[in-house]
Formats: sequence, C-alpha cells, structure tokens
Amino acid sequence: MIAAALALLAADALPGTPTAAEIMADAPEGAWVAPDPEDTLYVDVPSGRIVVVLVPEMAPRHVEQLRTLAREGYYEGLHFYRVIDGFVAQGGDESGEKDKGSAAQTLAAEFEVPMPAGLAFTPLGHADPYADESGFVAGQPAGRDPEGGTAWLAHCTGAFAFGRDEGRDTAATEFYVTLQPQRYLDRNLTVLGRVVLGMEHLQAMPRGALGTAGTIEDERRWTPIESVTVASDLPRKDRVPVEVMDTGSDTFRRLIEARAARADAFFYYRPDHVDLCQMPIPVRLTPAQDGE
Amino acid sequence: MIAAALALLAADALPGTPTAAEIMADAPEGAWVAPDPEDTLYVDVPSGRIVVVLVPEMAPRHVEQLRTLAREGYYEGLHFYRVIDGFVAQGGDESGEKDKGSAAQTLAAEFEVPMPAGLAFTPLGHADPYADESGFVAGQPAGRDPEGGTAWLAHCTGAFAFGRDEGRDTAATEFYVTLQPQRYLDRNLTVLGRVVLGMEHLQAMPRGALGTAGTIEDERRWTPIESVTVASDLPRKDRVPVEVMDTGSDTFRRLIEARAARADAFFYYRPDHVDLCQMPIPVRLTPAQDGE
Repeated sequence: MIAAALALLAADALPGTPTAAEIMADAPEGAWVAPDPEDTLYVDVPSGRIVVVLVPEMAPRHVEQLRTLAREGYYEGLHFYRVIDGFVAQGGDESGEKDKGSAAQTLAAEFEVPMPAGLAFTPLGHADPYADESGFVAGQPAGRDPEGGTAWLAHCTGAFAFGRDEGRDTAATEFYVTLQPQRYLDRNLTVLGRVVLGMEHLQAMPRGALGTAGTIEDERRWTPIESVTVASDLPRKDRVPVEVMDTGSDTFRRLIEARAARADAFFYYRPDHVDLCQMPIPVRLTPAQDGE
Repeated sequence: MIAAALALLAADALPGTPTAAEIMADAPEGAWVAPDPEDTLYVDVPSGRIVVVLVPEMAPRHVEQLRTLAREGYYEGLHFYRVIDGFVAQGGDESGEKDKGSAAQTLAAEFEVPMPAGLAFTPLGHADPYADESGFVAGQPAGRDPEGGTAWLAHCTGAFAFGRDEGRDTAATEFYVTLQPQRYLDRNLTVLGRVVLGMEHLQAMPRGALGTAGTIEDERRWTPIESVTVASDLPRKDRVPVEVMDTGSDTFRRLIEARAARADAFFYYRPDHVDLCQMPIPVRLTPAQDGE
C-alpha cells in the first residue's frame, strides 16, 4: 500500500527524453579524450595528487612559463598560504623571495584571446549573465564574444589561474584554484585550465580566519606543495590514466540537454535551464593498458 | 620605475562608487542580527562545529521535526555517509533502522510556501534563470514567484535541506548540505536553512569514489555525527556568538550594488551583474558579552 501511494505521488518522467545516467551508459569510447601529458600538471600535496589539465591555446605565455617553473622545481617547498572558504586556494611564494633565482618573468595578460582556430566552441545554449555566449572549449567551461572574436576560460569551480597585482601584466608565478564559481573574475585574470581530479584535496585545506581575505596568519596551517610536475616528464606507468569527456562530442551535447530537461521522475519542477558552472564535465580513470 | 609603470597599467577605480570593503567598514551595528537560538542548530563532527541557521517560516513542519529529532538525540552516532565532491554531503541513518524508535514521520513537502507575512524579501535586482525573482529572506538566498505569491530558499552553497525518495512527501530524517550551488534542486526538495559557519568541515569530508553518486562504500570513510543540538538547549556561554548581516538592511543593499559594480581598480572588466549564489552574506563572531 505504501509503495502504491508513493507511486501516485511521484512526478512523471518525461517520456522519450533520456536522463544523464542513460546517456552516460550509452557513451561511445570516442566521446572520451585523454589529455596530452604535456598539458597535464600534477600538484602533489600531503593528502594526495591534484590533476590539472591546461589549455595552452587559451593562455600560451602563461602555460609555457608554468611548465618552465614546474621543470625547474620552482614550486617545491612552497605552500598554499591563502585559502578562503568558498573563494580560492592560492599557492606560490608568499615571501616573493624565490622569484629572484628563477625563470619567472611578469607576463602580458591573457585574460581573453582570439578564439583559437584549432579548437571547437560548443555553445551551452542557455543565457549567461557573465558572457555574450558561454559554452565549452577543450573540455573546459568558457565564454566568448562572437562580435569581438575572443574567448576565455571561465571561473567555475576548479579553474586554475594565475594571480596578479593591480596591474594587468603582473602575473608571474602565483596560482589559485577557485573553490566555488567566481564568474566576476572572468576576463580579469588569466585562466590556464582546470582541476579534473583531486578537488577534494583543495577543499580540505585549512582556511584563514573568518572574514580575512589575505595570507593565513598561522604558517603551520599552510599546506605544503610537495611538487608540481608536467605529466609527460614521468614514465607512462606513473601517470594518472585520466580521461575527460570530449565537450565537442554528440554525447556531451545530449548531456547538456538532459541536465536542462531533468526528465527523471524525481523532479517536480524542471527549470529548463542549466548554468555553465552547474554543468558537470565527466572525468574517468581508465584501467592501465598493457604494452603501452 | 616599476611602480609607476604598474600604476599606468592599472584599471581605473570608479569614482564615487564604494567598494564592498568600504561598505563593510562603515556598517552600523544595526545591520547585524543574532539568529534566534531556537532556530540555530549545531552539527558537531570530529573536526569541529557546523552552525546552521533555520528559517522556520519557510519550512515549518520540517524545522519542527528537525528540532524534535535533535532533542531526542536521533542523529547521535549516525554519519555523513554520502559525500559527493561538488554536490552534497548527506547525513542520517543509512540503514533506515533508527527511524523505527523515533518521532520521525514522513512530512508533507514544503518545496515552496506562501511568502510569510512576517518576513521581508530583498530582491537581488538581477536576472536569474532559475527563479522569476531571486533575492534574500531572513539572511538566506531565496527565490519567489510574484504571481503565485510563493517563496523558497535557494540551493546555493551551504543550503541545509531534507533528502527524500521519489515521492514528494517522503522526507523524514535525512538531511544534506550543498557543497556547490545546485539551483536545479530548488522547489524539488525542502530547504530549511543554511550553514553560516563551518562549511570547511563539510568540504573536508572524505568523498565517495569518482563517478558514484550513492553511499560511500567503505564505511571507515563515513564522517561520524557526534551530536546535533538546538542552540537554545545550551547555556548561553556555550553558544557560538554568531551574527549574520540583515539582508533587509541598507548596508546589504549597498553590498549587492558594490558586488555588481566591482568599482575597485583591480577590475578591468566589470560584468554589472551578480549571481544569487555568488553574493556573499556576511557572518561574524562577536566577542562574548559580560553579564549576559
């Protein structure tokens, strides 16, 4: 009797409209992409590994400098020293001393770039108050200005970006990861890519005191950066076998529709909308391949 | 020379438009509200205390049952057993066994309610694709339907809500807190309030395996709930002296404007928009008062 009553009270599924789970179960192998190891960065902290996928076409100078700094071991022994709940976790050299002996240069801003010819832009298809058009580029949330012809990576959760001082061309070594969407930062800082695995390590870092936006005062609460490594510098067997859904695939386009439609019977109110930063971009780990 | 060059490259501040920091520094004492201890819940986990402020007017039946369950010690020894990165942390009785000996009843849904006469609705003043109108009620983000006359608390980060099965009137004891905005859940579940302090404890909880949405398989990774307490049941000296900005205050209205304007010189691109879930609602701890 109870089961029957529940069934009567349940919302109706939308017939003929597949759910995200059904689309994922049907996804062909071709809908998944293994990021280029040269564009993949491992940030190791005591609790584990954070995997960042960079998009060099969207921030060529910053990505090149980041690879150089990683390869010279610049970040080893530095810290996440500015962590603000619901905002960002920022890492680098709080003292500013270490820049002197490194390849670090202040970089010309890459807040937005001419839309790279080699990359596809998959429109979200829903209005976005922070961009003329929003969508996805190379497995990452992005905005673009169709008139101006520029594009930029968006500050959804997990955006990996370079910090800067007040001047636009002052970024050099400091990076941050957004712990929540912070779209107002779009086109004000240079986003290089996004965290695809290990957000839980960033979310678990000790925060600064309530209401303070700067450095965590107690240095014992800083999270050490053990190393920052370009994946291609490791033997293949030591790399994380991560794959990201191709945001240009038919599967991903169907997932966007499913997220807006919410066809499953759980939903009573269907917004017919999905926000750029509430659209998950699926990530998976593949079993290690023999003979590679 | 370097400083001069930086100054030339910096964006211009908008003259005459105060920044959020300036407004906060000027905020009168009357812009702060101490939540009613009868509407304040402490969820204690091993790493510390999570402070939840409930809005009984927005979910009267659910808040009443939650207080009853807290007072009978229902949640003691239960767990956060379903924690999904970027989605929710869910707590309660995974086995479903404990309900039998408790006051728990399945509750008629309170997804949205007639706008309570005693509460003010402060409009955000910016378009929101998830609500006819969005804004703030009793220090919490909310939506409303001016034609239908209903309102609801919104699923921004830290929303405290009851889980349910497929049927709309099936919520009883399980609760969840959103770790990111999940606005598509608005009007599909009953939100009771929000976390005002201690989100870092929820964000640090061990997650389930990548790609799984259910219970964390390894029970050793569940986070124990040590206790759930209504603040008014503790002596005044043991309560957390928290205050939340009055979202009906002139100070808060000015903060909304400042967040949309981004007048400080750091910003080169100003979106003239603020998203409901990207509008912080300030919280502070007051020094304990003598003689109270």
